[in-house]
Amino acid sequence: MKVVAEVQVIPLGVGVSVRKQVMRAHRLLEESGLKCELHAYGTNVEGDFDTLCAALKKVHETLHAEGVPRLSTAIKIGTRTDKEPTLHGKLHPDG
Amino acid sequence: MKVVAEVQVIPLGVGVSVRKQVMRAHRLLEESGLKCELHAYGTNVEGDFDTLCAALKKVHETLHAEGVPRLSTAIKIGTRTDKEPTLHGKLHPDG
Amino acid sequence: MKVVAEVQVIPLGVGVSVRKQVMRAHRLLEESGLKCELHAYGTNVEGDFDTLCAALKKVHETLHAEGVPRLSTAIKIGTRTDKEPTLHGKLHPDG
Amino acid sequence: MKVVAEVQVIPLGVGVSVRKQVMRAHRLLEESGLKCELHAYGTNVEGDFDTLCAALKKVHETLHAEGVPRLSTAIKIGTRTDKEPTLHGKLHPDG
Repeated sequence: MKVVAEVQVIPLGVGVSVRKQVMRAHRLLEESGLKCELHAYGTNVEGDFDTLCAALKKVHETLHAEGVPRLSTAIKIGTRTDKEPTLHGKLHPDG
Repeated sequence: MKVVAEVQVIPLGVGVSVRKQVMRAHRLLEESGLKCELHAYGTNVEGDFDTLCAALKKVHETLHAEGVPRLSTAIKIGTRTDKEPTLHGKLHPDG
Repeated sequence: MKVVAEVQVIPLGVGVSVRKQVMRAHRLLEESGLKCELHAYGTNVEGDFDTLCAALKKVHETLHAEGVPRLSTAIKIGTRTDKEPTLHGKLHPDG
Repeated sequence: MKVVAEVQVIPLGVGVSVRKQVMRAHRLLEESGLKCELHAYGTNVEGDFDTLCAALKKVHETLHAEGVPRLSTAIKIGTRTDKEPTLHGKLHPDG
């Protein structure tokens, strides 16, 4: 199942600045093979649903293993049957 | 990996009223074996991360098969290492 | 403008447990005069858009004044023109 | 109150393709005077909280007046007291 998605990882219990953990999560998403676009409020991704789930699991397991005690992740997942969902297509009419 | 989560399914292309599809999604989540709590803005769930992923896939695949052309699902996933994450614990200090 | 909405307040920089600040935010929403329904992932509200904005501002200003250094709040706002939006109506067909 | 925020507008009841309404919402946010960054999953904004609220109200009122019967808008709002919140600062350590 092909999806577009947005992933925002919020680490709790690591202090006020969370950029280090957020960038770690972004790199793990990139390493998963998903197409990734970083922006100020998260990472937009495009790819297979199962790959996304595996990547999300890896993000949570890795950050916990590296000392983050709590994570709240917000994900938006889009699928459609009329055409293939793509990040490009969400912004460009002829994408 | 034990998680608490919130799932909000938004069907597009089915008209202004979406309650039928939203309740269908809720029942599919219940049938997955996750602990489920319905509220006006979605379904709160508690259970295994892999079970949640399988349930989300089933929701998208089933609703598409039943005629919904587009779905936008918002999910919030919480994990923590200091204690077991539970829906009850999010509201009750001694939960 | 009448709205239904969901408000989830995430305090950062206060440690792993955030229940105290989350419940403080919930009570501030209740005191604003909005109809409120607490659940494990936030507070669902119903009322006037301007009242919601004033309440959200009060939540952020109050929690910061009480020592929370950073807040990330997720809000979902629903409006419709075909009938009055209500929390009850989101779950009950004859609501 | 200075904020950074993300705004995602989802129109319901206008069919499967929603790009026209989403881009209309983005332009209304830009016209409000907020600093805006468009991405595939919404518009990131930076500015005053009251300006954001006025812009959100204008988006809902305008799209409804132009024929959209239902809107579901997801917003994330960030504030902090340790330094000024900026979109640039969310991605760059020395921003």
